[in-house]
Amino acid sequence: MATIILYELGGPGGRRYSLYSWRTRMALAHKGLSFESRPVKVSDKAAIAFSGQAKVPIIQDGDATVFDSWKIAEHLEARYPQRPLFGGETGRGTTRFVNAYADRQLVPALVPALMLDNVRALETDDAAHVRAGLEKVTGKSLEALYEGREASLKTFSRALDPLRSVLRTQPYVCGQAPAYADYILFSVLQWARIASTVQVLAPDDSVVQWFERLLDAHEALGRKEPARAPG
Amino acid sequence: MATIILYELGGPGGRRYSLYSWRTRMALAHKGLSFESRPVKVSDKAAIAFSGQAKVPIIQDGDATVFDSWKIAEHLEARYPQRPLFGGETGRGTTRFVNAYADRQLVPALVPALMLDNVRALETDDAAHVRAGLEKVTGKSLEALYEGREASLKTFSRALDPLRSVLRTQPYVCGQAPAYADYILFSVLQWARIASTVQVLAPDDSVVQWFERLLDAHEALGRKEPARAPG
Repeated sequence: MATIILYELGGPGGRRYSLYSWRTRMALAHKGLSFESRPVKVSDKAAIAFSGQAKVPIIQDGDATVFDSWKIAEHLEARYPQRPLFGGETGRGTTRFVNAYADRQLVPALVPALMLDNVRALETDDAAHVRAGLEKVTGKSLEALYEGREASLKTFSRALDPLRSVLRTQPYVCGQAPAYADYILFSVLQWARIASTVQVLAPDDSVVQWFERLLDAHEALGRKEPARAPG
Repeated sequence: MATIILYELGGPGGRRYSLYSWRTRMALAHKGLSFESRPVKVSDKAAIAFSGQAKVPIIQDGDATVFDSWKIAEHLEARYPQRPLFGGETGRGTTRFVNAYADRQLVPALVPALMLDNVRALETDDAAHVRAGLEKVTGKSLEALYEGREASLKTFSRALDPLRSVLRTQPYVCGQAPAYADYILFSVLQWARIASTVQVLAPDDSVVQWFERLLDAHEALGRKEPARAPG
């Protein structure tokens, strides 16, 4: 079996800060598949032109080129049935719901608190690229968004109530062991951990304890990526 | 096999308005299990004292007495493995997440728009009971809550964005066919349909089209319960 190549956003010092890339990393580790990471700069589309589109993560898995973290998960589940990510059609469907919930409720609520730090850590050309894209979408400067971070972080914490509720009766979203729905939600907090020094949840939150367990999963793949250092 | 007895809230004219009872009804129908409904008034705890607690729905399934819609679903899945509601442990876990999301995001957002109508349709003793309970929890009169219904309905509609996103690529939350996660979300709109004349979503919303399909599922079990008539 050839090693899978993962093209993913990379910042200075090899920082892997993309939440979508973390979904794929954890899915690969869950399946026990080894992979080789190829960092791509946001502003360097040439590096991934071979895929016929402009977004990362992308995997090259033998003859298959697959992009979009959700499609990559489906590809891995179909090609490598061992250690299921979804556990069948119903699990795939409901996990897709969790994916949409993360992208539509959690990620937007973290943008104000995280993106200023995130962008400041990038190289100049990438920083300008990301800033321009986000300021166009939101109609606000990153600095103005950051001013509204407290309200946004309250929205974020409230949006996690269903997760807290689930964690009262089981250690992972997927039950007794983590699977893809856990990695989706993990990816959001991993982004916060890597991109910014802002503390997005209180340390005694059950969500933080669940996140810490996932940082240790799969030979501590998540923890090996250092948290953003203050200053 | 003895017929399963379902104790559930019943209003005047036999109206089955409880959303939790709809989760159980759809789960029973999904499994192809026949059941006999026993309506219980909110103010009549004596009728269900046998269960050792005060909440409906409750099922009596041979020697087993089970209450709480989630526990009933788990019981049915364990005892009747045909036509799975969850499709395995990962599906059970992620469906539990959907259950918590419905109860923590969707139901509270509908209370202001629906409960005034809902309570007005109940008999005097039940109406007083439900009103007192809800006004204690929210610290507001039902009339004051109703004044805030427009903002609440916007919150409700926004909270359904993950469902809309999922419905763009598959007909049901659980994939190509409905299962328990669909019935959980269905129950919320079925409550709105039965309890109130307030239109909670625009008719061209993809969520409404999905809901209509579910009203027709299982020999139109959901549609047989009439919608609340205006006036």
